[in-house]
Formats: sequence, C-alpha cells, structure tokens
Amino acid sequence: MVEVTSILIFGASGDLTKRKLVPALYNLYLKERLTGEFHILGNSRSKFSHEEWRAKMREGVEEFSGNSFDETAWTQFAEHLWYVAGSAQDVNDLKTLKEFLEEKESGASNRLYYLSVAPNLYVPIVKNLGELNMARDPGGWRRIIVEKPFGTDLKSAHALNDEIHSVFEEKQVYRIDHYLGKETAQNIMFLRFANAIFEPIWNRNYVDSVHISVLEQVDVGHRGGYYDSSGALRDMFQNHLLQLLTLIAMEPPASFDADAVRNEKTKVLQAVRPIDPFDTVCAQYEGYKELEGVASDSQTPTYAALKLNIDNWRWQGVPFYLRSGKALERKLSEITVVFHQPPHTLFRDSNNGNFTPNILSICVQPDEGIHLSFEAKVPDSARRTQSVNLEFHYADTFGECAIPEAYERLLLDALLGDPGLFTRSDTIEVSWQLMDPVIATWESDEAPMLATYARGGQGPKEADELLANDGRVWRLGCVHE
Amino acid sequence: MVEVTSILIFGASGDLTKRKLVPALYNLYLKERLTGEFHILGNSRSKFSHEEWRAKMREGVEEFSGNSFDETAWTQFAEHLWYVAGSAQDVNDLKTLKEFLEEKESGASNRLYYLSVAPNLYVPIVKNLGELNMARDPGGWRRIIVEKPFGTDLKSAHALNDEIHSVFEEKQVYRIDHYLGKETAQNIMFLRFANAIFEPIWNRNYVDSVHISVLEQVDVGHRGGYYDSSGALRDMFQNHLLQLLTLIAMEPPASFDADAVRNEKTKVLQAVRPIDPFDTVCAQYEGYKELEGVASDSQTPTYAALKLNIDNWRWQGVPFYLRSGKALERKLSEITVVFHQPPHTLFRDSNNGNFTPNILSICVQPDEGIHLSFEAKVPDSARRTQSVNLEFHYADTFGECAIPEAYERLLLDALLGDPGLFTRSDTIEVSWQLMDPVIATWESDEAPMLATYARGGQGPKEADELLANDGRVWRLGCVHE
Repeated sequence: MVEVTSILIFGASGDLTKRKLVPALYNLYLKERLTGEFHILGNSRSKFSHEEWRAKMREGVEEFSGNSFDETAWTQFAEHLWYVAGSAQDVNDLKTLKEFLEEKESGASNRLYYLSVAPNLYVPIVKNLGELNMARDPGGWRRIIVEKPFGTDLKSAHALNDEIHSVFEEKQVYRIDHYLGKETAQNIMFLRFANAIFEPIWNRNYVDSVHISVLEQVDVGHRGGYYDSSGALRDMFQNHLLQLLTLIAMEPPASFDADAVRNEKTKVLQAVRPIDPFDTVCAQYEGYKELEGVASDSQTPTYAALKLNIDNWRWQGVPFYLRSGKALERKLSEITVVFHQPPHTLFRDSNNGNFTPNILSICVQPDEGIHLSFEAKVPDSARRTQSVNLEFHYADTFGECAIPEAYERLLLDALLGDPGLFTRSDTIEVSWQLMDPVIATWESDEAPMLATYARGGQGPKEADELLANDGRVWRLGCVHE
Repeated sequence: MVEVTSILIFGASGDLTKRKLVPALYNLYLKERLTGEFHILGNSRSKFSHEEWRAKMREGVEEFSGNSFDETAWTQFAEHLWYVAGSAQDVNDLKTLKEFLEEKESGASNRLYYLSVAPNLYVPIVKNLGELNMARDPGGWRRIIVEKPFGTDLKSAHALNDEIHSVFEEKQVYRIDHYLGKETAQNIMFLRFANAIFEPIWNRNYVDSVHISVLEQVDVGHRGGYYDSSGALRDMFQNHLLQLLTLIAMEPPASFDADAVRNEKTKVLQAVRPIDPFDTVCAQYEGYKELEGVASDSQTPTYAALKLNIDNWRWQGVPFYLRSGKALERKLSEITVVFHQPPHTLFRDSNNGNFTPNILSICVQPDEGIHLSFEAKVPDSARRTQSVNLEFHYADTFGECAIPEAYERLLLDALLGDPGLFTRSDTIEVSWQLMDPVIATWESDEAPMLATYARGGQGPKEADELLANDGRVWRLGCVHE
C-alpha cells in the first residue's frame, strides 16, 4: 500500500480553504488521522511563497479550527503545507504543479484533488488533469472532490458529469454537500436504522407530514453577483434540502455500503411526484435588489417553500414541506416529523380533545439534538394535558467540542475512499430533474411576482398559506418559545 | 346540591393522618378545592381536646405539606378541624361521634369516611356505620375510603367485600392504593392514549419485555410485628406492582370513565397466566430475623421477584418481570419497557452489531420523568454508536413543587366522586387470585429456603438469575451510572 498521500487544493487563496479545508486537515492531523507521508499543496493564481501561504493558513487554523492553538503541532503540520501559484486551466502551469508534487512524492502516491474554484473552471481543470495523465496512477489512487454548485440545471449537470467521466471514473468522483457531513445529518440513518422503535411508525399510517426548514440569518451580502444568477432553489433546494429529504424518506438499505445507501437515496427522489407550480412559493427579501451585483429588476428568489409528494407505498398522501431562505429571524436547520393525532381522544373533556400532535424534531443546527414532543398530564390537574419534550442534546452527552466540522468527516472519508456521504452522479441528476420545472416556472415571463418579506422576519406569509391551505402550520420542535 | 361536607377520619392519632391526610386536606384548602361548608373530624381512642389535636395536625402540616407555612391560612383551616375520642367499634362511641357531626352539619350533608385504622377494625366500624344508618342520606352522598391492606388473600378480601357491601354499595367504596395517585402513575394512561406514537409499538411485535421495579431503601424498622405476618408479596405485589402492570398492559378503554378504565384493568389481570412457582424468587435481607416482632425462624420475604405472562393477543410471549424489596441500595420506582433489537443490523461492523435495545422508562419516583434510550452515532466516528437518552423531567417543565402528594389527588377525587384511581372490588379479588398460589407455595412446609441479600445492596442474585435464564438483565432507564 502506498504511504504517500497528496492533497492538492485548487482555489487555495479562497475563503473555503482558509476557513474550512485547512482547519479540517489540521484537526485530522491532531487526531493522527493523517498518517504516513502527506503533502498539502495549495494552488491559485495569487502569488504566495510557501511561508506566506502557511502564515495565511495559520490565521485560518487559529480562528476556525475550534481548538486552542498548539504552536508545536502547528509547526509540525505546517511543514506539510506547500503552495505553487499558477492557473490550473493553463496546462503548462498545471504541469509545474505536477512536477513540484512528483518531486515531493518521489514515487507512487495517492492523490486527492479538491476543486474549490469557480464552477466554470471545473471542466478546464479536469481536462488538464486528464491531459497530464494525473487521473490515473497504477501505484496509488486518484480522487477528486467537486464543490457545489454542480451544474445549474439537469442539462448542465449532465454535461458536467459527462466531462468529468471522460477523465475520472464515477468511483473517483466525490461531489461534496457539506450538509451531509454534519453529525446530525449523519445520525439520521442511525436514528432510523439502529433503533427498533422509529421505523414501525415511519410511514403514512402514522406520519401526518414532514417539514424541512433550513433558515438562515445571513443575507446575500457581498455575494450578490454570484447569488443573483443562482437563487434559493438552485443554491439550497437542489442539494441540501433534497438530500435531507432522502435521509428521512428513503427505505432501509440492506447495508451501510456507499452504493447501497445511495441507491436508496436516488430511488426515493425518483419517486417524488413532479412538483406542481401551485405548490411552490418564491420570495425575495426587501432590499435585495439594491445589493451590488444584483439586477435592479431581479426576480431571483432568496426564499422558497415547496410541497413535495412521494409516490410510493410508504409515503403516499404524506406531504413533505420544504423551506429555506436568507435574512430571516434565526439560523436554524431542522427536520420535523409530525405524527397523526391519536385516533380516539379518550380525554375528550381535556383541551376539547385537541392535542398537539407528536413531533420528532432533528435539529441539524445550531443546537444539535433531537426533540420528541408528547402530551403529558399537567401535574395537579385531573386530566388537563400539555405538550412537553423528551430532549437529547449532543453537547450534553458528548461535550461542546465533540462535534467536528462537516468538512473534517468529508475530507477523511474521501481520503479513506468512502463515498457514502457524497452525492452520486445519478442522484445529482434526478435532483435537477425535480427542480428544473419549478425553476423554469419562476424564471418564465409568465411567472407570478415574487412575494416579499422583511429582513429579520419569519419569511413571507405566502409560505404559511401554503400549509394553511392544507390545514397545517409549519412546525419547529427544537425551538421552545 | 348539599353544600356541607364532612370528612370523618378513623384512626386520627396515627401517622398517616398527621403526615399525609391532613396535610393533603390543608393543601386542597389552600388551592380552594375544599369549598362550601366543611368539617374534618378526627377520631381515635386517644384523648385529645380539639385544640390538642389541631396542634398535633399543625405539626404535620408544617413538616409535610410541602408548602411554606402560612399562619393565617392555617388558623382559618384549623377552625374546620374537630376531634372526638372514642372507639368506633363501640356503637355507643360512634353514636357520640355521629351526634357531634350532626350538630355541626345541622341538616343534610355529604360525608367521606376514611378508615385509617388497623384492618381488623374495618368490619366492626363499617357494621356500626350501617347500624347507625350512617351509610345513607337522602340529602347527600356517603363515601368510604378503605386503606390497604385489603384482605390477606382472596378469601379474606372476598369476605371483606361482602361485609362492606352489606352496608355500602360498591360505588360508595373507595379502596385506596396511593401508588395510583402519583402523578407519574396517572400519566401512564396519558402517555399511552393522548399520544399517537407509542400505542403502535406497544405490543409483542416490538416489545421484548417489561420490567417493573419498586425498590425501597428503608427496611422494616419497627414495623416487624405487622410486616412479619404480611411480607413483600402481600405488602407490595398484590396492590402496587400489579396496579402498575395494569396501567402499562391494559387495552385502551373507550373513555376515561372510571368503570371503563377499571374494566380494562381487571380484564388484563384476568388474562395473566397463573404464575409458575419456578418463576418466583423470594428473599429476606440479612438481619431481618433479629427485628422486634419478627419470628426467629421467620420465612417472610422482604424481597420478591416474579415473571408474569399475559395470555392475550397484545402480550403473548412478552414476559413482565416484577421486583420489589426493602433495605436496598436505592429508593426507586420505575417501569421499563424494553423493545426488540432492530430486525437487521445495518451497521454490522459497529459494536459487532450489538446495540442496546430501545428502552422507555417511566420513573415513578424519585426523579419523576420519562427516559427513552436510543442509539446515536458517536460524533467524530464513522459508524460507532452509543446509547443516549431522550429525557423529560417533570421538575424541569413544571417546577419542583408542582407535583402534589398522591393523597391530595385521591382525597379530592373521592370528594368529587371520581373513583377512577381507586381499586374496584373485582380488581382486588383477581389480584389476590393471582398472588394466592405464589404466597401459598412460599408459605408451605415444602417451600424452598428464602434467598438472602445484604442490606443496602442490589437484592438477591437469584432475582438476576430469573432474568439471566431468559437471556435478559434487569433494566433501569432512569438511573445513569
């Protein structure tokens, strides 16, 4: 087995590298999970010496690694960091990089390429990697991590898959969705399949509806230029929200093997009924159009809400409500499974027989945990009930610092060759297939006007009406007000 | 409607009156639940003036009511307290009591009689109440609360029911089991039937076993004389433990009506298979025989453990393990529902596929609450799992002081005419019918020697072996060590 591993980061002068990737690699190093000889090589067009880039990365580690800074460990780790400037879409520059790396490696090696660059550079870089024969090595493995966005619609995603597959085999390709690396997202499969009590009630007989909320406090800020060509449906729904949906809705795979799991994820997305435009809400926060880089007549949604139906035996008739937006009152990602009312209200005279339904809430962030609301008798009353919570907080059990950044798990898995938490080409494509018609509707000339909503508020009233039309309200179980 | 209510306590010089009954009545008074004109009349053979008894009761209220003492409220409350000495088994003494009460009531009244006396006085007092025509009043109601023990076997319980029924109708009789007045015991029905998520998995398909533990730290102390003729099976199993079992195991009643509920409780006890003597363990703590009032060759168990089977569709094949004892390491009453392992261990390579099963624990005391253990992924591991807890503590949600003493609820229900939390004659009898053969086995000349156990320990190893023979261990979900 080859003991030399190189991690080559394209786009190494960017925020992601400084805030996430290098701090995550540093933490893996501290935990002795980066073993053997390894090299981390940064590349971008910006000119840095090795030492300048290390100094920049040191800032990132100090601020973002989540650990108290260890000077000795850093010094040792930094010896593995290298930087070579150049444009990776220029095959000559990439050749320089390759030669630098080969000198460090001095023989067979494993290599992880990380595309932390603008999407329009994915194909040129991949092609150059192919041309320089950097996608294969008889002595070690070659893998490539591709950041989001992966395409802007089904057609572009399909074309991008084709281009990548002309150089890399699918099993070498790791399409990253950092939401899937979050502990709470990873735990969904364990919650469902390492426990015997949830699966029996995880279906249309017991579940009334599922609500997935990914709410952001941050606004678009200085990303107006990028964001205005993307919008909430591309930026959040096609990837994060649909991926969370697959974790909640998929059938139990026969094993934890990456493809067994990803087969089930793809299958459940394939079972989603084409989305009715009337089941969608798009909105824009007030003031968005004034941002730099945003068209003054922009119709890009910064908020969206959808109702999905899954046409299979398990979920027939159970609506899945998804919403996500920016510039809202709070930052919160939560999946809420709302159960039916009890079939017979024994305690008719209490609360007029109206109970809050049982709600199982998986809080993905910020207070990672699980809440299960149930009705309990109010003490000192004869039969009055109140909704109370069974609660589990990761921090209580495992400590505040136990939860690593998503990128740490994902980089490690990529290094270990486990693609289970990465998105396969067919899953990406079926996600776009679902979102394309919705996006097309809202981008067409006959599209309804976007709803608007106040910054720092709850989002547009139209999203509440989407549920109200079904006699429901959005449920959040992890926030008790 | 008659607005005059009298509460006549027989055995008013005893501990129960001072520690529980009068403090409970005082609390009901504070909460304005004792309304209209009311009189609380104490009776026993001890001679007290009204003022002397009030002073004694004041001590009880100060120490045991759980509230900070309110001088003004006490003074007002104490004006309703009266005491008349005399032997209630002497019809002339009872007549004096009656006349005293009638003078206070000056007309039609409601009356609650409370038999807080030695069991051998139940029948004489009831007969005298009948003879003096105190069991009926065309203008108001008459009810009688009978303390435990209610008989010492089926025959005596049946005879006692007959005697009581010769004077009082069943609907007038309130057989008290204070365990049923505890908030957490009351809440079991709400947990099961005001929520839609538990009932679907509350059966043999999902439940592996049910464990009911009523563990006491206290020993027999100075109650040796009484206890040695009773023992754990009579003192705890026939009433408390079997009643807790009915709450967990009964079918959903159609309504919360007292008889609808008690029909279901009786029904599930009737479905319990006669207990195999080999499924029973009886033990005595070391040093018990040296107690005053205890025979030096006593074979009275201070600890017992049983396995029960319920022969119906819901519970066929699910063992119910019950245990209770004195002089143990801790005071704890808990009902634990242990669920099956997941049918298929997806995460085979984690923990060798061995998960802790899901456990739902209802902690009756001391830290009233509900715990639901489930397997979660250990953060920062790929697929290692750990058993963690969803928890609900009454005190967190409702405050430390919100949980009233069981006697408060039970006295109020008796005053309101709701017998739902009291034991009906047929339920008492079927309980004895179950316990009689077990008791007979252990009291026979061929009975095996009692096991022994150390004071302050975990109980006898034989109780662990009872479960080990079935490949199980006693589970406690509310204690995390």
